[in-house]
Amino acid sequence: MALMTAKEYIDSLRKLKTRVYLFGKPVENWVDDPIIRPSINCVAMTYALAQNPEYEDLMTATSNLTGRKINRFTHLHQSTDDLIKKVKMQRLLGQKTGSCFQRCVGMDAFNAVYSTTYEIDEKYGTHYFENFKKFLIYVQDNDLVVDGAMTDPKGDRSKAPHAQEDPDLYLHVVERRPDGIVVCGAKAHQTGTINSHWHLFMPTVAMREEDKDWAISFACPSDAEGMYMIYGRQSCDTRKLENGAIDVGNAKFGGQEALVVLDHVFIPNEYIFLNGETEFAGMLVERFAGYHRQSYGGCKVGVGDVVIGAAALAAEYNGAEKASHIKDKLIEMTHLNETLYSCGIACSAEGAKTKAGNYQIDLLLANVCKQNVTRFPYEIVRLAEDIAGGLMVTMPSEADFGSPTVVGRNGETIGDVCNKYFAARPGVPVEHRQRVLRLLENLCLGAAAVGYRTESLHGAGSPQAQRIMIARQSDLPAKKKLAKVIAGIPDED
Amino acid sequence: MALMTAKEYIDSLRKLKTRVYLFGKPVENWVDDPIIRPSINCVAMTYALAQNPEYEDLMTATSNLTGRKINRFTHLHQSTDDLIKKVKMQRLLGQKTGSCFQRCVGMDAFNAVYSTTYEIDEKYGTHYFENFKKFLIYVQDNDLVVDGAMTDPKGDRSKAPHAQEDPDLYLHVVERRPDGIVVCGAKAHQTGTINSHWHLFMPTVAMREEDKDWAISFACPSDAEGMYMIYGRQSCDTRKLENGAIDVGNAKFGGQEALVVLDHVFIPNEYIFLNGETEFAGMLVERFAGYHRQSYGGCKVGVGDVVIGAAALAAEYNGAEKASHIKDKLIEMTHLNETLYSCGIACSAEGAKTKAGNYQIDLLLANVCKQNVTRFPYEIVRLAEDIAGGLMVTMPSEADFGSPTVVGRNGETIGDVCNKYFAARPGVPVEHRQRVLRLLENLCLGAAAVGYRTESLHGAGSPQAQRIMIARQSDLPAKKKLAKVIAGIPDED
Amino acid sequence: MALMTAKEYIDSLRKLKTRVYLFGKPVENWVDDPIIRPSINCVAMTYALAQNPEYEDLMTATSNLTGRKINRFTHLHQSTDDLIKKVKMQRLLGQKTGSCFQRCVGMDAFNAVYSTTYEIDEKYGTHYFENFKKFLIYVQDNDLVVDGAMTDPKGDRSKAPHAQEDPDLYLHVVERRPDGIVVCGAKAHQTGTINSHWHLFMPTVAMREEDKDWAISFACPSDAEGMYMIYGRQSCDTRKLENGAIDVGNAKFGGQEALVVLDHVFIPNEYIFLNGETEFAGMLVERFAGYHRQSYGGCKVGVGDVVIGAAALAAEYNGAEKASHIKDKLIEMTHLNETLYSCGIACSAEGAKTKAGNYQIDLLLANVCKQNVTRFPYEIVRLAEDIAGGLMVTMPSEADFGSPTVVGRNGETIGDVCNKYFAARPGVPVEHRQRVLRLLENLCLGAAAVGYRTESLHGAGSPQAQRIMIARQSDLPAKKKLAKVIAGIPDED
Amino acid sequence: MALMTAKEYIDSLRKLKTRVYLFGKPVENWVDDPIIRPSINCVAMTYALAQNPEYEDLMTATSNLTGRKINRFTHLHQSTDDLIKKVKMQRLLGQKTGSCFQRCVGMDAFNAVYSTTYEIDEKYGTHYFENFKKFLIYVQDNDLVVDGAMTDPKGDRSKAPHAQEDPDLYLHVVERRPDGIVVCGAKAHQTGTINSHWHLFMPTVAMREEDKDWAISFACPSDAEGMYMIYGRQSCDTRKLENGAIDVGNAKFGGQEALVVLDHVFIPNEYIFLNGETEFAGMLVERFAGYHRQSYGGCKVGVGDVVIGAAALAAEYNGAEKASHIKDKLIEMTHLNETLYSCGIACSAEGAKTKAGNYQIDLLLANVCKQNVTRFPYEIVRLAEDIAGGLMVTMPSEADFGSPTVVGRNGETIGDVCNKYFAARPGVPVEHRQRVLRLLENLCLGAAAVGYRTESLHGAGSPQAQRIMIARQSDLPAKKKLAKVIAGIPDED
Repeated sequence: MALMTAKEYIDSLRKLKTRVYLFGKPVENWVDDPIIRPSINCVAMTYALAQNPEYEDLMTATSNLTGRKINRFTHLHQSTDDLIKKVKMQRLLGQKTGSCFQRCVGMDAFNAVYSTTYEIDEKYGTHYFENFKKFLIYVQDNDLVVDGAMTDPKGDRSKAPHAQEDPDLYLHVVERRPDGIVVCGAKAHQTGTINSHWHLFMPTVAMREEDKDWAISFACPSDAEGMYMIYGRQSCDTRKLENGAIDVGNAKFGGQEALVVLDHVFIPNEYIFLNGETEFAGMLVERFAGYHRQSYGGCKVGVGDVVIGAAALAAEYNGAEKASHIKDKLIEMTHLNETLYSCGIACSAEGAKTKAGNYQIDLLLANVCKQNVTRFPYEIVRLAEDIAGGLMVTMPSEADFGSPTVVGRNGETIGDVCNKYFAARPGVPVEHRQRVLRLLENLCLGAAAVGYRTESLHGAGSPQAQRIMIARQSDLPAKKKLAKVIAGIPDED
Repeated sequence: MALMTAKEYIDSLRKLKTRVYLFGKPVENWVDDPIIRPSINCVAMTYALAQNPEYEDLMTATSNLTGRKINRFTHLHQSTDDLIKKVKMQRLLGQKTGSCFQRCVGMDAFNAVYSTTYEIDEKYGTHYFENFKKFLIYVQDNDLVVDGAMTDPKGDRSKAPHAQEDPDLYLHVVERRPDGIVVCGAKAHQTGTINSHWHLFMPTVAMREEDKDWAISFACPSDAEGMYMIYGRQSCDTRKLENGAIDVGNAKFGGQEALVVLDHVFIPNEYIFLNGETEFAGMLVERFAGYHRQSYGGCKVGVGDVVIGAAALAAEYNGAEKASHIKDKLIEMTHLNETLYSCGIACSAEGAKTKAGNYQIDLLLANVCKQNVTRFPYEIVRLAEDIAGGLMVTMPSEADFGSPTVVGRNGETIGDVCNKYFAARPGVPVEHRQRVLRLLENLCLGAAAVGYRTESLHGAGSPQAQRIMIARQSDLPAKKKLAKVIAGIPDED
Repeated sequence: MALMTAKEYIDSLRKLKTRVYLFGKPVENWVDDPIIRPSINCVAMTYALAQNPEYEDLMTATSNLTGRKINRFTHLHQSTDDLIKKVKMQRLLGQKTGSCFQRCVGMDAFNAVYSTTYEIDEKYGTHYFENFKKFLIYVQDNDLVVDGAMTDPKGDRSKAPHAQEDPDLYLHVVERRPDGIVVCGAKAHQTGTINSHWHLFMPTVAMREEDKDWAISFACPSDAEGMYMIYGRQSCDTRKLENGAIDVGNAKFGGQEALVVLDHVFIPNEYIFLNGETEFAGMLVERFAGYHRQSYGGCKVGVGDVVIGAAALAAEYNGAEKASHIKDKLIEMTHLNETLYSCGIACSAEGAKTKAGNYQIDLLLANVCKQNVTRFPYEIVRLAEDIAGGLMVTMPSEADFGSPTVVGRNGETIGDVCNKYFAARPGVPVEHRQRVLRLLENLCLGAAAVGYRTESLHGAGSPQAQRIMIARQSDLPAKKKLAKVIAGIPDED
Repeated sequence: MALMTAKEYIDSLRKLKTRVYLFGKPVENWVDDPIIRPSINCVAMTYALAQNPEYEDLMTATSNLTGRKINRFTHLHQSTDDLIKKVKMQRLLGQKTGSCFQRCVGMDAFNAVYSTTYEIDEKYGTHYFENFKKFLIYVQDNDLVVDGAMTDPKGDRSKAPHAQEDPDLYLHVVERRPDGIVVCGAKAHQTGTINSHWHLFMPTVAMREEDKDWAISFACPSDAEGMYMIYGRQSCDTRKLENGAIDVGNAKFGGQEALVVLDHVFIPNEYIFLNGETEFAGMLVERFAGYHRQSYGGCKVGVGDVVIGAAALAAEYNGAEKASHIKDKLIEMTHLNETLYSCGIACSAEGAKTKAGNYQIDLLLANVCKQNVTRFPYEIVRLAEDIAGGLMVTMPSEADFGSPTVVGRNGETIGDVCNKYFAARPGVPVEHRQRVLRLLENLCLGAAAVGYRTESLHGAGSPQAQRIMIARQSDLPAKKKLAKVIAGIPDED
């Protein structure tokens, strides 16, 4: 089966009966909804670029399961080179969309579930690995988008899943049948979930024996009976409803987060990949998180490239691009952005083969990568705002720039006045200045800031989660030993 | 005449025929416009608190011109203690509004124009100082809001005012009459300008002989013939139109920036405070900027208190407030915020008397203050987002939380589902969690972020402007001499 | 009695029978020991500048106890103005010595003991306040240096004083007699202790009932029977023994730290200021620490001025002072240094009267001050090393520059070759370049780095100690309330 | 010929007639000089580890020139895998020595000269490539240490080589003969130069036509007629003369920097690799700098491991290792250190083949790597000092700890007293605490700080040099184009 085109992908969504709620109401034709559509365009880009021969090497791969050419987003990494290409593909997509393109969570889930199910089967003689391979071949062959769904609502953070007052606050099994299970619960902050064909659910924390019913992983389609999504709102989301193309900042692309609810959803046995083997919940979380922390060393770097380019353009339009402090700030932004990229590349280059045969990133370096992602985009944004100037947040609306309302003594319209007073560098159309500043507003404070800033903090785990992993991986005893040898302290251990 | 109450202030605005344009159209009843009103409420708070005996010492002062009790926002600082109280008043207002309350620019302009006009008259025998005193007595007695208007659109940044293709890109005199002058031009990014009764215009750069017609300072009322304002849009501005009270984050207060256009406005002689004495343009800019850079060590600290409080509250509602890393982040936020405050206090305590008799801040320390303000609020915001968690930017809308649309198998509405899955710490109403996260969104990415972040960068001059002043004030030769003495290097100079 | 001159001070030390040990041996004529002498010169500067009419206002004060003119280092602060002058005096001395001048600990101890003894007496009817006043009048009248001694060795950090295996690890009473007490123990890291005439001992932690014998404060002279000091070594200390004036970096001034041991020292009742009133140990620690954290906003700023001046000089000698990145680094250094100063000034300006009548700094801001001191000097040093260039740490020795040993084909000596190849900007004697780089080495890595870096971290309490105080003083509940009001959350408390 | 053992290497140095001057005098037996010897031990470690089967894969390689097994320090990188192994080898050596092991400059010079001479020959038909290959085979077969010598004294930084008053301030040709050239000049800050068998000289700046005589590269042995070295002094260097093993911090290993003077040295034609082809000077500098900036992502990371281990050990000995702030600081140190490592790995993994066939690092990422190295070690050191506590810089000397001088009433010696009062965690010998604190002092302020701090700033080019390269490599036009596409701005270029 061939790779889908962008158009085929969008059409495929229309065939799904996905239930979507927005601003308190059902959205019937959600594919064409102006709030939602930019996020679909973003995912569509993962199809469009795979059709482009220029990007074939990055965007496609050969399936180790079927030998067929597949979209890299459905690939099981077969080498460190594959891991590096993943990062480069993500940077490319960040560059092309200036947004979160949402398809990474699925890819990261595939690779984590693949190697973990192998190890569960090894221990318990279960058949999760075979289940999963069949499922993944179907995904690869049909070039589907799959949401990797991990984050439960969690309720009282001080209590384990089984100890919550409301058991649904972690996704769990409410009924076991011979042919499958019935599950209840929800996943919050789900990136691109509405734009997905299928969903791959995983637990969100390490678990103990008592959490048996919460230790589940499975796949189900977007329009499974009992499943629905409630759209999350973003900064400046309703600018998309204003019928303009400028104030929205990025008229074509955007991210998406939603609450996914599973209200007594039936899951057939063949789509189950973990079911009560509690001690593997932690491994699955750690591996998925590891891959996803690597991802941020690619996608956010691509968005960073757009921020840097936009800031440089704003400086040019302002006529300030030769000032030494402006040049220095652009260097600093580049330096920080490429440091993130270096971390993404390094944890890939240092990857290793799992028992199942696919490749995993270096866990320490992937956590270091993500930890930097929780910091540098904020500084990059600050520098971008510095370069852009205050007009980014004080400029009149697109409607003003185009308004025919007369205000001046000589018949000048509001539009005339805006164009007169916001002209900067001679020769640059004011609209271009408007556009680049609105793009920067979008990235620094608007809808894209949700992805570039807050998601950089909390996506794939909050900063403290990485610090815990760094502590675990840092092997302090070995480092103490190095110091002892040099200091001449005998090693008593 | 008594100090106005908040209500009297708002009523007084209705009497003005201020011309306001928003989204390409005139706004007739702008005082009650939902986009504009929160910014008026903010200014009104400067009146309300002055009526409160608890704050009398901070909010009011005794005029050195009339001996009458006045609002401190119209006061000429008579001591370093006055300068310190100014900062404390600003912190208080930041705490009460979580926004930019707009009335500082006028206060800072009063003090800068007062001392500068004195020195112009001293040199040229002009009567600007008397003009200004009369104007200020009127302002004090009527308890008016005056916009201190400095920033010209500037056009081509590489050219002086007189060398611009369009002479209007800096405000200038187009006609000189026996009874006054006619001026053309505009001021951009004007904070609170629509909410002001009068405007005090000043040049925005140091000038040379050829810029004579651009070296002007004067006062005029908001509804002067030929004057009008075009509203600037802010992140998430239209949430105020949604008829809710939660998603808007801060339902009552907000900031305001606008483009003020002067289209052949006539200014009578008595309101002119600078008219062609080009060498004093720089002094006026430097003094105004100095006061205004001090201001940020008060107002932004007050907003910072709200950010810290909201983050602490979010942590409490999430059930995470006892985690050591959360406590440590709150300490860091407090540390940074109090460092800003220290700078505001220090440049005040080190203030000195001008020739005219009012007090000026320490110029070096005021620039150091503002330079820190271009950095720390960004880190405070980052830490607040860290503590808040991703829900701040992925939460469904207020409409969802209140929606009666049935979605669940057992008749649960969207509202039920949202309230079920976004419950965190037992006992905390989900709405409280919603409210505090929306307030944080407002401060970190929304309308208030315009004031707390971008304005912290660019208000009162961009970071590089402060660095130039720091260089000028740092007296490197004296420091080199200290080093020479200690290093045993003879001083040849 | 008149203020002592620097010479009189040095002579006064000779009269003391202070027991000093260095490199494992007693030092008889320690006043002229080349390792120790620079630290004495530093203290002497506090006398010399007090004789200089130019600095009289900063260096001297009028005693509130006697009405006599005294050295400000022995003064009880009578106003916020006094607190500000203290900081300025410290900056001045830092500028003149580029080192730690050691006399602040006594001043800070005086002010803390004065107000605390007042409150102990108030509660217990003891006479510590009178005891202390008498002692302080003696100190003021004789213009003495008094070491404020706080830090005990502490042993096992997880145990209270009374629970240590060796009770001497915290200074304590071993015998109570009618006429006084006998004490045993030690104080570590004592700045300037050898150069002091008397010592004012205080507890180092808050205490509980069981620590009664450890809750003591008293004064005793340097040559008390049973007391002796073991000198601590500093980076590059033995360069002072090399008989040169260049490689040592700062030939005249330096700091001093020592271990002070009290081996059954008898303390007469009249010199006792706390004796078992355990609950006041914490107050004394907190007040002393508060004053001392303020101090660092003065003294380290003065040393910072020397670092900045030396870096600027190095850039000038290298011919690089006009490069925009060099100028920018000097601005950054100045900005950081003045931020520290602002904190020092602010906690002084916000000071308040104690029950005893002297003035105390604002505790929150003093801790914020010190917290910044644990960070910024490190960045200032990094920037100084950046500007200086690598030669600072790779330059041949002073002996090489002066060596007559012939090495070249044409009879060039080692000295010739060094002077040939280390010439930079034409016209600048190579020796001047040598001197300024060695001064920078001294400040960045050498003996002065002990004071400018490590002491900035740990002096007056380690960073975490300040964070705990910031947390305690930050009043989060009040800040949460601010957020609640704005977010529209009812206040249930 | 077999790889040398550490002992053979040290013996081989004795056979050279290298002329070394220290403290103004010639050093005859410099191999056993206590100041110099630790730096020789460091280089010897590059031999010792190559003999260890455990490290064979990292420490040795197969020569592409001869097919023989060689020490990796003499290897031409044949793949990105080789580049990665280089970084790992460097980290290993940093871990084993806690110092600069000096042999990298040669390795980096080999690889830069190899690819550059290939391209010169390609253009000019010269035979530098063949010359160099012959030389390198000799080096590989004899397992020699070669100093890569680049940095000229530079004199007046504002002038080109040919424009200096003293032409020797850049190394240059003073005479051209049929069989070779005669050169004069010097190289400053030469790491490990005395410990090298041969030297590979390269220009230090890009050059123009007029600088023809300065555009030279060649090899010569350490004891060439006319060549000599003057030793540079380091912080705390003379502690090595104190006959102790503790206060020196790192008794076995250390770095070395010297001034290398070439006083009319004759270079036969076969050792010349560049001779007047000015336009290739820049390429050679850029390539060498690129490799060397990569190197710092390995060696400094290894030293960082020792710093982290020592800090963790100090915390353990202090009994503070479980405090959450201590753990958090160790995590931060690890995070920063691994970020540097990620940069080292990334610029290696992204390397590419040169025309000559060896592999070069990614230039942008190598500069990003080094830029981070100019920052993070300083913060790591600050955190280490924080964890260590003030005792690191106030502890009495080793002589005190061992002193039999009686000081106490009960016959306690100075040694007893030191051991009594500096005991911390029960069960830990005080000497161990002493040792680890002295090691930290060595790394933070002492001899090793020269390598870990200042060399991290200036080695392989100062921070500004990297910023210039980052600017050059950042391709802003491409980034602007990305922004234009998203913002909907037509691309006029």
